[in-house]
Amino acid sequence: MGKLTLQDIKIFPLIKVSTVGGDILHGLKKTDSGFDGFGEAYFSQIHKGSIKAWKQHKLMTMNLIVPIGTIRFVFFLNGEYREEKIGTNNYARVVVPPGIWFGFQGIESTDNLLLNIASIPHDPTEAIRLPLENITYSWGAL
Amino acid sequence: MGKLTLQDIKIFPLIKVSTVGGDILHGLKKTDSGFDGFGEAYFSQIHKGSIKAWKQHKLMTMNLIVPIGTIRFVFFLNGEYREEKIGTNNYARVVVPPGIWFGFQGIESTDNLLLNIASIPHDPTEAIRLPLENITYSWGAL
Repeated sequence: MGKLTLQDIKIFPLIKVSTVGGDILHGLKKTDSGFDGFGEAYFSQIHKGSIKAWKQHKLMTMNLIVPIGTIRFVFFLNGEYREEKIGTNNYARVVVPPGIWFGFQGIESTDNLLLNIASIPHDPTEAIRLPLENITYSWGAL
Repeated sequence: MGKLTLQDIKIFPLIKVSTVGGDILHGLKKTDSGFDGFGEAYFSQIHKGSIKAWKQHKLMTMNLIVPIGTIRFVFFLNGEYREEKIGTNNYARVVVPPGIWFGFQGIESTDNLLLNIASIPHDPTEAIRLPLENITYSWGAL
């Protein structure tokens, strides 16, 4: 593998299957591209306008899925930014390798729900954090 | 292991961590009790009053988590029933071994969202289905 870049973040569109009583929303199969082992799955709720930033994992690969609402993700590496907005209307899995700063913002007034299927269990010693204001970004309109 | 019974379905309460901007909801760690390998994670939405039933997996162990809304699950084995209602107000993981009939019903008028973290990827040949009316159950008031 060469030097890590923001293009190493991969987006995989996911299928929604309409069924009587409610849709089935695909998530992640162990045979899917980008799967790097299962460590832990957990949810983060993010209210409209709220921002959780910044965090960088040293070891964890994240699989980010937004089944409810819409969330703006901002990734930062070596002075460059990448923004991705996923959720109900752009239903996809975002695979984020370790070593990239990220933050996210709730967009819809409904619940905005993030599922992270992580390659390792939560371990506070493998993540580093910075205050929101330490990486300047124009988070844009809701 | 002895003969499969409905008591082999295990309920593990899950933690919600309040944080600024939105809660963190625990899901499943690979070190958790009842974890039987990762095959696939997918969501099922279920509208208020709608019922999806009946299905039985021959091989899959299910980890059922309801991060949004409330869902009534009914399990059936050897003429006996077990009912569990989980969701926002009773946040828990339900581990269901293979070999048990199950169905579920949406309770709240908001989205009711089910995450299944399954021990094997989806495989239509390992599940069997019966029409709702083939197993009599009084699904009760909403």
